[in-house]
Amino acid sequence: MNALSKPRIYLALVHYPVVNKNGETIASAVTNLDLHDIARAAKTYDVDVFYVVTPLADQKELAGKIVSHWTQGPGSEYNGSRKAALDLIRMEDSLESVKSHIAGRGEGYPKLVATSAGGWGDCIEFGRLRGILNAGEPYVLAFGTAWGLADSVLLSADFVLEPIAGKSGYNHLSVRCAAAIMLDRLLGTAR
Amino acid sequence: MNALSKPRIYLALVHYPVVNKNGETIASAVTNLDLHDIARAAKTYDVDVFYVVTPLADQKELAGKIVSHWTQGPGSEYNGSRKAALDLIRMEDSLESVKSHIAGRGEGYPKLVATSAGGWGDCIEFGRLRGILNAGEPYVLAFGTAWGLADSVLLSADFVLEPIAGKSGYNHLSVRCAAAIMLDRLLGTAR
Repeated sequence: MNALSKPRIYLALVHYPVVNKNGETIASAVTNLDLHDIARAAKTYDVDVFYVVTPLADQKELAGKIVSHWTQGPGSEYNGSRKAALDLIRMEDSLESVKSHIAGRGEGYPKLVATSAGGWGDCIEFGRLRGILNAGEPYVLAFGTAWGLADSVLLSADFVLEPIAGKSGYNHLSVRCAAAIMLDRLLGTAR
Repeated sequence: MNALSKPRIYLALVHYPVVNKNGETIASAVTNLDLHDIARAAKTYDVDVFYVVTPLADQKELAGKIVSHWTQGPGSEYNGSRKAALDLIRMEDSLESVKSHIAGRGEGYPKLVATSAGGWGDCIEFGRLRGILNAGEPYVLAFGTAWGLADSVLLSADFVLEPIAGKSGYNHLSVRCAAAIMLDRLLGTAR
């Protein structure tokens, strides 16, 4: 890859391992609007693949039904722009299989950038990650559903991205809105 | 107001008058997750009031039930941070009544900033609006549900904000994600 290539950033929406309100590790349920909203944001910022990560067979089946309704079923004729977004979705069992799939695209093994609303010891700032992305190496940006990514993911990540600092100290954005803001900060043109 | 005051920006999510897929003016239905996501983003960026605009009695009743569940009902004890966000919601019949309510807060009559994904002849840029906001005068930033604000709103607005330019020419963000990105661009600290 060279410096003129587009940033090779992939998105992963993680349903396991994440934590619940009590900090316990769980597998969360797939949410219809997460898939739609984040796929539309991914398409807006020219991301090639939006991985939806869950090891649960019934959740994979549910997500597959949602996606195929819009990409192959009646929805694809009703709303072509929705099809273009949901076409980016690919189901994977784990972040490991996400990384393997990206490597299989021939761009090298990606680095994992985890996100955390609560913050983490040594975070990478938006501006620095934006600069690194322009070098063209592959990265996967992982978002946790429910109350966020489990510590095991944060510990194993190559980077943890700094939280979105608003104006009020309140840090409870939806994962949909957080993903959109992060894509805009990392890939948007209005800087 | 003086230059040291915080930006006086209010949000309005408009359900009438908006357009449908065919460009016809309609009143759209209130969507539960619009209220939650945009209220959480508003709270993050320290917006004082998030107006939900609809003249339809049944939709006002539905929205009122959603809000009161989280602000006064069982949800308020289950999730205090959600209560803090939904407390920002106020129902209004029209953008006119939104402006009157803001004026009644003693900050002067607000200017209306409309948003449009499709663009509009003479838009104001994010950077310029950000600068104007810092002067401390009140503004209401209006988002359209369905296929966007009706032309009558865009024509009557003091400003139309430029669309969010992604990287791909695809401009079909959800209103939830578009509102979050716009708040971050106008009020965020990571510039």
